Amino acid sequence: MGRVTVTFQPESIQAEAQSGEKLIDVAARAHIDVSNLCGGQGVCGRCRVRVQKGRLSLTDKAIGKLSRKEIEQGYTLACQAEILDENVEVWVPPESTTDVQIQISDYLVSAEESAPVAGHDYEPGPIVRPLCEKFYLELPPPSIDDCLSDLERVYRALRKSIPEFPFVQAHYSCLWGMAGLFRGNDWKVTATVNLRDADYPTIIRLEGGDTTSANLGIAIDVGTTTVVAQLIDLRTGEILGAQASHNSQARYGEDVVSRMIFACGPAGIAPLTEAITFTINSLIDSLVKKHKIRHRDITSIVAAGNTVMSHLLLGIEPCNIRLAPYIPAAARFPQFLAEEIGIKANPQAFLHCVPCVSSYVGGDITAGVYACGMYEHEEISALIDVGTNGEIVIGNSEWLVCCSASAGPAFEGAGIKCGTRAILGAIEKISIDGDRVRYETIGNQKPLGVCGSAIIDGIAELLSSGIIDQSGKFILLDHPMVQVVDDVPELIVAPAGESASGEPIVITEDDISNLIKTKGAVLAAVRVLLKTLEMDFMDLEKIYVAGGFGAHLDIEKAIFIGLLPDIPKERIRFVGNSSLAGARHALLSTRAFHRMEELANRMTYIELSVHPDFMNEFVAALFLPHTDVELFPTVTGKLKERQNGRPVQ
Amino acid sequence: MGRVTVTFQPESIQAEAQSGEKLIDVAARAHIDVSNLCGGQGVCGRCRVRVQKGRLSLTDKAIGKLSRKEIEQGYTLACQAEILDENVEVWVPPESTTDVQIQISDYLVSAEESAPVAGHDYEPGPIVRPLCEKFYLELPPPSIDDCLSDLERVYRALRKSIPEFPFVQAHYSCLWGMAGLFRGNDWKVTATVNLRDADYPTIIRLEGGDTTSANLGIAIDVGTTTVVAQLIDLRTGEILGAQASHNSQARYGEDVVSRMIFACGPAGIAPLTEAITFTINSLIDSLVKKHKIRHRDITSIVAAGNTVMSHLLLGIEPCNIRLAPYIPAAARFPQFLAEEIGIKANPQAFLHCVPCVSSYVGGDITAGVYACGMYEHEEISALIDVGTNGEIVIGNSEWLVCCSASAGPAFEGAGIKCGTRAILGAIEKISIDGDRVRYETIGNQKPLGVCGSAIIDGIAELLSSGIIDQSGKFILLDHPMVQVVDDVPELIVAPAGESASGEPIVITEDDISNLIKTKGAVLAAVRVLLKTLEMDFMDLEKIYVAGGFGAHLDIEKAIFIGLLPDIPKERIRFVGNSSLAGARHALLSTRAFHRMEELANRMTYIELSVHPDFMNEFVAALFLPHTDVELFPTVTGKLKERQNGRPVQ
Repeated sequence: MGRVTVTFQPESIQAEAQSGEKLIDVAARAHIDVSNLCGGQGVCGRCRVRVQKGRLSLTDKAIGKLSRKEIEQGYTLACQAEILDENVEVWVPPESTTDVQIQISDYLVSAEESAPVAGHDYEPGPIVRPLCEKFYLELPPPSIDDCLSDLERVYRALRKSIPEFPFVQAHYSCLWGMAGLFRGNDWKVTATVNLRDADYPTIIRLEGGDTTSANLGIAIDVGTTTVVAQLIDLRTGEILGAQASHNSQARYGEDVVSRMIFACGPAGIAPLTEAITFTINSLIDSLVKKHKIRHRDITSIVAAGNTVMSHLLLGIEPCNIRLAPYIPAAARFPQFLAEEIGIKANPQAFLHCVPCVSSYVGGDITAGVYACGMYEHEEISALIDVGTNGEIVIGNSEWLVCCSASAGPAFEGAGIKCGTRAILGAIEKISIDGDRVRYETIGNQKPLGVCGSAIIDGIAELLSSGIIDQSGKFILLDHPMVQVVDDVPELIVAPAGESASGEPIVITEDDISNLIKTKGAVLAAVRVLLKTLEMDFMDLEKIYVAGGFGAHLDIEKAIFIGLLPDIPKERIRFVGNSSLAGARHALLSTRAFHRMEELANRMTYIELSVHPDFMNEFVAALFLPHTDVELFPTVTGKLKERQNGRPVQ
Repeated sequence: MGRVTVTFQPESIQAEAQSGEKLIDVAARAHIDVSNLCGGQGVCGRCRVRVQKGRLSLTDKAIGKLSRKEIEQGYTLACQAEILDENVEVWVPPESTTDVQIQISDYLVSAEESAPVAGHDYEPGPIVRPLCEKFYLELPPPSIDDCLSDLERVYRALRKSIPEFPFVQAHYSCLWGMAGLFRGNDWKVTATVNLRDADYPTIIRLEGGDTTSANLGIAIDVGTTTVVAQLIDLRTGEILGAQASHNSQARYGEDVVSRMIFACGPAGIAPLTEAITFTINSLIDSLVKKHKIRHRDITSIVAAGNTVMSHLLLGIEPCNIRLAPYIPAAARFPQFLAEEIGIKANPQAFLHCVPCVSSYVGGDITAGVYACGMYEHEEISALIDVGTNGEIVIGNSEWLVCCSASAGPAFEGAGIKCGTRAILGAIEKISIDGDRVRYETIGNQKPLGVCGSAIIDGIAELLSSGIIDQSGKFILLDHPMVQVVDDVPELIVAPAGESASGEPIVITEDDISNLIKTKGAVLAAVRVLLKTLEMDFMDLEKIYVAGGFGAHLDIEKAIFIGLLPDIPKERIRFVGNSSLAGARHALLSTRAFHRMEELANRMTYIELSVHPDFMNEFVAALFLPHTDVELFPTVTGKLKERQNGRPVQ
């Protein structure tokens, strides 16, 4: 088999390849991150690239995913194309790279949460301290009468600065070069202290002069599909910037189960750990570049992710998570030296993972429970986190129960033909007004696709307009914006002429069917958990909804399609990425971090997969909004009004 | 300049060399540890080697150190011989290698301290624990009803095993492969726990099965001249073996000051750190080989050394120790990962240094004060440690003061023509009976040289026989065992025909002069310290004498020459290598380690170099036993008896 050269445009990056190799693997090796939500199964169709010179082999699967026009233009799917015995040049369009998405999603994440953290356990000041804090010390130079060693001199000064930590240790690496550092900087130094363990605060770094203004942290939401990182000023709590990206692990499988199967196979965990650290490093690199900071000023990192993501990030075997009795290797994690798992930051910076509850309720949920504050109040509330899985927590300041349901990443744009994450150019709102379909895009850009909030809008509008029925089937096929392609009816949201790619942006009957399964799983989980507690929807005083839908989730429409329980909408609050918010809280407050450890311990996990009611509840929920009309009285009312010819809001 | 090959015999080890290089540097590169007490200055004459093939250049200095016969036989000094443009083969005689000494000194060290540690703070059992302990755990396998994570399962089992440590952490490296380890070993595992910090016990290793019987520690006395290591069973406290060697740093300077000058010059600390870690690794390797153990079973290491040795071992700048106001970078050291400073043991084993008091009173003295127990009693006692420096501590359970005097390594055999450390074949006792000189060697071997205890014997006997006077000059030159070589008179202890080398073993007038300076410095330090305390010799209820003199220090003779104060000999106890004993205590008992931290804090250091009385006291002590006869009443009495023609003793 011959060796050939593959050139990736527009960057003109070249890579050597072997004939027979998949193009997507060559791209991965060249660190060109081609979108690949389905893990190379030829299902998601996100890895479209155009062959500009030379040829590639093409499978039938790829042909099925591409339009005739695309095939004529030379498009193929990178995961389905194999290298032949000739050099080839391919063009990776911006919408097929995660790189571009990293850049544009910044807008959204930082817009959503630009205010400094306040409340809860974070009050900058002497009582609550970040996981890693810098202290500027002006040490008195030694003399015959004050001949303490250099190190004890630092300890003495720190005891004055942080009287609540009388016993400070130094990591041994601080001692190397310390004597010269002190004398070369006129005894003015800054000590970076890891405060995670109140019993064992540790100086991890000593620098000359006052560098307290450069103490940065990274909060990360490690999602199965999407990874979001925020750069935090640990002194002020300010969010300096945010970046998001696809999780590069996607090439090894779309969901946690397929990634576990890969990790526990012959290749082992390493490729998955490398993929996620690659993703995190790209996010950090972008933040470092954009904000003109230095990697060494990043002194602590907090990651919140589900249990499998946490294991894979830390290089820990997740294999027993999917085998009865479903035991994670760890749920509360020790701190890991970031460098040792390959993450670029200060060489002494630690990575802290938010503790998990069980194999299927992870640190992202612990972080979310903390961030929404439901654990503080007497009133009973619920957190519904819709990511690649759906997790539900119900409880109050006295008790908390939780469960997990495999939902699928439909709301993050995967499994949806024109789905996209909430990035610049994503359609975030849809309304149907008679024959016309209106939409709004993030940043008023040319539309790229539909994000989660718009899919909810679209389905709700299709249902209330009578274009689809309650089972999600198209019944009004003569609507001017409805067309049938390959026997599948679809709504044209943006015609070809308006979209960024020149292709129409649509919502298909298959998309709706996928989404109904996702929302059905979430609602069924809520129902089963409430039943176990002998409670009803109305017993929930508050529902916090978290997830990557977009910036503006229309609560009423989410109720209308049966994703959220039919309770007064003022009781429901969309809290965005609560996992990320929790990670940020932990970074900024050791007290918050320890509270999360306590919460993870306190939450009672209910296993749905063995629950006798779950399957019935799931089937009952595969309807818009639900087969049991009494569960959704207001929706039922509105649907009746529609049948009576009156407009539905 | 050409490249040539140097062959070292008897091992036939070959090394490449450049013409112009010193032979001793080539040997060092080939890891042939040629004795080199003077740091390559051509002074100690220990690096004799014989050229068997080819030629080497030879300096005048070398010629002055060699006898005519040696020169005829082809002997040279490795530190003074330069490689020429031709291949060369040299023979390294056993007495010139430290390797041989490593092997033979084992006898002595383990004979001296073969009993398990007992008393003080070490009682094997639940209350006092070694710095690193292994716990065998039979974990209940997880089930649906007991679905704790693998890691929490270990924590829970450990809490039962060591209820006094409710909060145990795991080092992150333990999590890698842990899940498979547990399941592959039927949930029977051994946890190795670092207990140095009671507030923060840390699992550093997890192994399958019961490996508690293999938990080993290394106690090291890091002397400026000699390094001694003991292999300790951390479960029983038993000393399994001991090895000693020259400190390879000697090639960079004989004493701490010259090594500091080297370390603070352009080459930096690294060569010195590498030299001492090389020495320690050789000792560990020998112990590993001899006792058929594995490096990975060495789970903790405690080193006791003077402040400069401690800094150089840990790679910390010692530069300010020799500049006013004499400030060490650190006196209490954090634990160092042994691997990170290049020491071969378990990859997660820590090296702990016994804390120092000040720049010139180090961890060896703290360890000694602990080991002799003087800090526990109300009675006032002194510790006199005679190594390359002499350190004195006086005090009791309420107060402790200490000082240091630069003594020189005469008692360890350096600066003495036929001096040697207390190794197999070393002459350890000398008596002069009329015209005859009798001697005893360690192990009844052919004599190699005289060790510290024999030099004291020899001088005392020379003085009481009237062969030398109280200033150390030979006055009885017609004694049959006295000869004059190159104008310097000397006592023949063992004639050429009896010695291992075929050369006579002698004590020269220069040797005596060197030794008088050493003993003078020690005694002057004791005097100044006592004066400061407004005390006399007789106020000392007990004197503990430590140092590498040999196994049998004759206390009476040490008093007779004025090395030790003239107090009743039953008050004086020779305690051998108390630094090593203290290191062993620390290894076996966290309580002992913390007590040493406390002791180092409590000791008050008196700086002799600025003390107005020291120089006068030193000069007054340059006499046998002392210029002030009243200070040594019993010795004066004996000398008077001798003058009256009656036998001494």
